[in-house]
Amino acid sequence: MKALIAPLPVGAQLAVVAPAGPPREGVLAQVPGLVHQLGFRAKLYPGCHGPAHLGHLAANDAQRLADLHDALDDPEVAALLALRGGYGCIRLLLGLDLERVRRAGKPLIGYSDLTTLHGVWARCGVPAWHGPMPASDWAQPGGLADASRLAQWLQRGLWVGDEQQAPAPHALSHGQQADGILLGGNLSVLASNLGTVAQPELRGAILFLEDISEDPYRVDRYLTQLLLAGVLDGVAGFLLGSFSEADNADAVMAERLHPLGKPVLAGWPAGHGQPNHALPLGLPVQMDVPSRTLRW
Amino acid sequence: MKALIAPLPVGAQLAVVAPAGPPREGVLAQVPGLVHQLGFRAKLYPGCHGPAHLGHLAANDAQRLADLHDALDDPEVAALLALRGGYGCIRLLLGLDLERVRRAGKPLIGYSDLTTLHGVWARCGVPAWHGPMPASDWAQPGGLADASRLAQWLQRGLWVGDEQQAPAPHALSHGQQADGILLGGNLSVLASNLGTVAQPELRGAILFLEDISEDPYRVDRYLTQLLLAGVLDGVAGFLLGSFSEADNADAVMAERLHPLGKPVLAGWPAGHGQPNHALPLGLPVQMDVPSRTLRW
Repeated sequence: MKALIAPLPVGAQLAVVAPAGPPREGVLAQVPGLVHQLGFRAKLYPGCHGPAHLGHLAANDAQRLADLHDALDDPEVAALLALRGGYGCIRLLLGLDLERVRRAGKPLIGYSDLTTLHGVWARCGVPAWHGPMPASDWAQPGGLADASRLAQWLQRGLWVGDEQQAPAPHALSHGQQADGILLGGNLSVLASNLGTVAQPELRGAILFLEDISEDPYRVDRYLTQLLLAGVLDGVAGFLLGSFSEADNADAVMAERLHPLGKPVLAGWPAGHGQPNHALPLGLPVQMDVPSRTLRW
Repeated sequence: MKALIAPLPVGAQLAVVAPAGPPREGVLAQVPGLVHQLGFRAKLYPGCHGPAHLGHLAANDAQRLADLHDALDDPEVAALLALRGGYGCIRLLLGLDLERVRRAGKPLIGYSDLTTLHGVWARCGVPAWHGPMPASDWAQPGGLADASRLAQWLQRGLWVGDEQQAPAPHALSHGQQADGILLGGNLSVLASNLGTVAQPELRGAILFLEDISEDPYRVDRYLTQLLLAGVLDGVAGFLLGSFSEADNADAVMAERLHPLGKPVLAGWPAGHGQPNHALPLGLPVQMDVPSRTLRW
């Protein structure tokens, strides 16, 4: 039987790249040790070390893009691990070589701003892991639990028949089953990808959404924009992760998503904050709402 | 000679509508007096009075939309005045009757979230006024100066040969002249209109941009999205208003706009905060960078 995502052997090399924001002072030095602790070797690409550009980018576009291309091409690199999110991936779309993404077929691990690159990965037919990142999550208090779970998935790979389950029912959940390719990520980033090559084809997909510290009106705006742009029409089902620091988001979600008449599985333990369980994107999945289960 | 925007006689009736957020407690009661003080009569539409919906909308969508349609159809109403911005206009696109906007041909006064409706007005070939609103600006300390300037423009209308000038040179300014229809408004709202009927046709246009309290990375994201979506390609020139509470916005703007090789006139006294001079949207204008002048 063939793995949906190939297992990474212990000691496999992860390319640590910084396609988005700069690491906080002192965090970068911990990253190789953290990666080693989880059973892998880290190869830090130059853009991780700066110099920061415009204050909010880990390095200039040319450096961040070269790192991504180099990591895709390097035969010793088994997968790409984003240092952290923030902002910056969308800027790389101006020069990103999609053929190299396709040819390499390497999973990209991350979330938040990485939703942009995950959209490209999906367009290229390459699976990815939505999951915690070393400089923003692993190094946080309590962050190693999520990182260890991610490492376990990386080491065993993903196989037909694998399952994940949400821990508890959620009031927003609605409907029965849906089948489709699991896509999406951060809601605000997804909206910002409209009109770009990172906009995923969502017809027939299970759309995963999460966000952080967005005012309810912003959640409303992003969902309304996706709706008006015709992006939500054909979605087969919605998987909702955490909407941390966004108090009224549930009411906005219910108003926008329930009328679409598609199954909604809410309260999924992924997104900003903890827990942030690793979620494989870009692969067909069955979402079962009553049992709160994803089945590959 | 025909006016580009017809003068409103003293005592003309302005329809005060609330297509976006709810007014702050106690402000609504001041609005009719403020409108009267500026030489007009106010007709407050029901949605101004609530009840608020989801906390961030002045009333539900049906009420806000009905108000807009009623004000467009009412023969006694000379122009529409938005109570305030916030968020909500994009939700009205689901039901807005563009034929009524076209047929009525009435200017819509406002800014910020109103950028969405101004996009629709532009698509319908109806001019609009980017300017201060009664519940968010006129009632502020010092807000009556901008309101009075707006009222003067409303009363005299706009004529071929009219001019406006920016008070001082700005480091971001760049290039010479450009001619085109003046469109745009709030940068974040403009990005959120991508893929909707409110997305204006910007080929050959002079694009006006302003924003408030957006982190530089957000300004970067919105501009990058517009660039990648192919919306900035054909813009003839850029008119930049205030980017209040967004410290590093100038560097981001320069990096994104200067390579396009089009004239940029920055420091225009319009946008969030004061001054916020009335700016006619949807009409051909000549932008002269060296003299910091717009000529109709």
